[in-house]
Amino acid sequence: MRVFIAGIDGYLGWPLAQYLTVRGHEVAGLDLLLRRQWVEEVGSHSALPVYSVDERTAAFQQRYGRALDFRVGDLLDYNLLRGFLADFQPEAIVHLGEMPSAAYSMIDQAHTVFTQQNNVTGNLNILWAMKEVCPQAHLVKLGTMGEYGTPNIDIPEGFFEVEFRGRKDTLPFPKQAGSFYHWSKVHDSNNTMFACKIWGLRSTDIMQGVVFGTQIDEMGSDPRLRSRLDFDQCFGTAINRFCCQAVIRHPLTLYGQGYQKRGFLPMRDSMECLALAVENPPSAGEYRVFNQFEECYTIEELAYIVQRVAADNGIDVTIHHYDNPRAEKDQHYYNPDRQRLIDLGYKPTHDVATEVQVMLVDLLPHRDRILQKKDVLIPDIRWDGNRRRSEVADLPSLP
Amino acid sequence: MRVFIAGIDGYLGWPLAQYLTVRGHEVAGLDLLLRRQWVEEVGSHSALPVYSVDERTAAFQQRYGRALDFRVGDLLDYNLLRGFLADFQPEAIVHLGEMPSAAYSMIDQAHTVFTQQNNVTGNLNILWAMKEVCPQAHLVKLGTMGEYGTPNIDIPEGFFEVEFRGRKDTLPFPKQAGSFYHWSKVHDSNNTMFACKIWGLRSTDIMQGVVFGTQIDEMGSDPRLRSRLDFDQCFGTAINRFCCQAVIRHPLTLYGQGYQKRGFLPMRDSMECLALAVENPPSAGEYRVFNQFEECYTIEELAYIVQRVAADNGIDVTIHHYDNPRAEKDQHYYNPDRQRLIDLGYKPTHDVATEVQVMLVDLLPHRDRILQKKDVLIPDIRWDGNRRRSEVADLPSLP
Repeated sequence: MRVFIAGIDGYLGWPLAQYLTVRGHEVAGLDLLLRRQWVEEVGSHSALPVYSVDERTAAFQQRYGRALDFRVGDLLDYNLLRGFLADFQPEAIVHLGEMPSAAYSMIDQAHTVFTQQNNVTGNLNILWAMKEVCPQAHLVKLGTMGEYGTPNIDIPEGFFEVEFRGRKDTLPFPKQAGSFYHWSKVHDSNNTMFACKIWGLRSTDIMQGVVFGTQIDEMGSDPRLRSRLDFDQCFGTAINRFCCQAVIRHPLTLYGQGYQKRGFLPMRDSMECLALAVENPPSAGEYRVFNQFEECYTIEELAYIVQRVAADNGIDVTIHHYDNPRAEKDQHYYNPDRQRLIDLGYKPTHDVATEVQVMLVDLLPHRDRILQKKDVLIPDIRWDGNRRRSEVADLPSLP
Repeated sequence: MRVFIAGIDGYLGWPLAQYLTVRGHEVAGLDLLLRRQWVEEVGSHSALPVYSVDERTAAFQQRYGRALDFRVGDLLDYNLLRGFLADFQPEAIVHLGEMPSAAYSMIDQAHTVFTQQNNVTGNLNILWAMKEVCPQAHLVKLGTMGEYGTPNIDIPEGFFEVEFRGRKDTLPFPKQAGSFYHWSKVHDSNNTMFACKIWGLRSTDIMQGVVFGTQIDEMGSDPRLRSRLDFDQCFGTAINRFCCQAVIRHPLTLYGQGYQKRGFLPMRDSMECLALAVENPPSAGEYRVFNQFEECYTIEELAYIVQRVAADNGIDVTIHHYDNPRAEKDQHYYNPDRQRLIDLGYKPTHDVATEVQVMLVDLLPHRDRILQKKDVLIPDIRWDGNRRRSEVADLPSLP
């Protein structure tokens, strides 16, 4: 299949281009390289070196024996996007081209507005361009499990049957996102559901959990083919950040008690799930939602796993609780479904420790890069709109 | 109270400035006068003449004996907005400053993107400015009943208790909006709910029905104090458009069979409800939702009322069904609550015919202005993204 990747330079976009190529698909993609700028703006860099577009595409050609149509350009440039899609005539579009950080969206008015304008407009442009030049294509759009928040009932995959005052209907499951970034993803989901309804477009909306990992097997050992790996407060998500902290023997930073429960999945599972979605399109007019994660863990459980695997490698790290800069429940019910990808053949790996072992081995050679930027490991962007560095908190253990 | 009106030049903003002044409040407001441009862009003008800002404010001073701080400026200019709010220190902010047309948002990619950028960013700017310079103010934010769509169950006011797989929670009611404009209002509602939660702001989110009417008593007879009244396919809503059609003896234009049911309210009820919301603020951190309409009617019922009242005035008009340019259900269940405003003292007028009589009398002197633009009465903006003028359809009557 011809697959277009919006955000092909990113943490997931770059490995996905390779994974889909290995599975026999023809890949093209667009990226404005903004992720590189944002991480620099927040005072950090990737733990694994990131190579230039020319170096990446040269390495791609070398390993996979074909040229990659990787264009540097802006999703917000509608004519550019529409022209690219009209030329390439994708059968699937994977939309990874958004600003993906909750904390970044909460910095101030300008960052909130940038996040929502960038994400909502980019997604609207994809919908309009599909309608105009490739209405049969299948949009695999990345949402996030964070769209749902933490309701006190089970989380179905997108829709549920409701009985209310004696009548029934099947309705979109209510969203309760936890940052202006997460809300931008909800806005995108809503706009996409609507476009499928009125224009007969087809879309799979992936409510993805938090991805961790430094590699997929397909990449091989060429460093130019490796993905980025961020560890700062904005772009470094829990396990990735813990692994970077471990290799420099920095305490693992839990926000609050660490009993927040979330869905997680290794990069290799993310790639498999996205490929399954791409290869099994819905029918015209269908908007379907997949919850995509391997398993739910508390953040504390994950910190303990990283601590244990680090110890196996002779690295002793402590775990510190910091006052939580976010507004989120520390203890809550959490039971999301994730059946639809399993029905398509997804086999969850169920082995965080093995993945963490791979990550530590990959990260150890880059210890100095992480040390250079160790100031970014403690959060100071707070959901109350003030900037103050979190401090170690003496939090009571749960009974 | 000091009340700031965003969109003070608009169909509701201008009468509200007067209504609140008469009730003893101190009003200030901002408007970029975009509504005047949009209506011109779609080839139309207001049936009632609209005077310049200087003429409007001079008449205001004359009738109400005080100057009105009416500034021409853009909600998207964050520094301007924040500065104005910091100076004025409003106790309430009524947010009417959005692009309000479903059809306009569906014209093409550029209009969809403009609508969502303009509305979402303006609302985000208000939330951030409140947080920064007037966190105790009460945001009376205009949503629309159109956010809910037409679910097959009752529509509560914003939230409902759900039982799902044996567990219960109170959740936001799912939204199923019917245009990119309506979705922009959903995005705003979501962002506002979130800002109340994290920053302790207070907001009343008004899910307003379709407003009709040419005047409120408080305005008196000075034409400079009258509001605008649009009749084109974008900004002319059902009853307003029917009345303008009646005075030029143009067939009343029903889209489809006309059995779509919606909540409606006269301008005088809208003013009363908004004032009740302003004068009864919620507590800090509370986000509450009011459904605001007088009664639900099918569009066909309303056409019959206008036809009958027109006949009483010696004007014979027919009713024509046109193929529906929108994607919406023609027949559906519709039973929204509207208890919370009644609990605050709202007494619905329950008299569409009397209001229509006032409207016809107000509009008859401006027959020529409507005739000049009669080409805008038949819709050609279609939800399928194509531009084609609707044609008279021979639709079977319901049994």
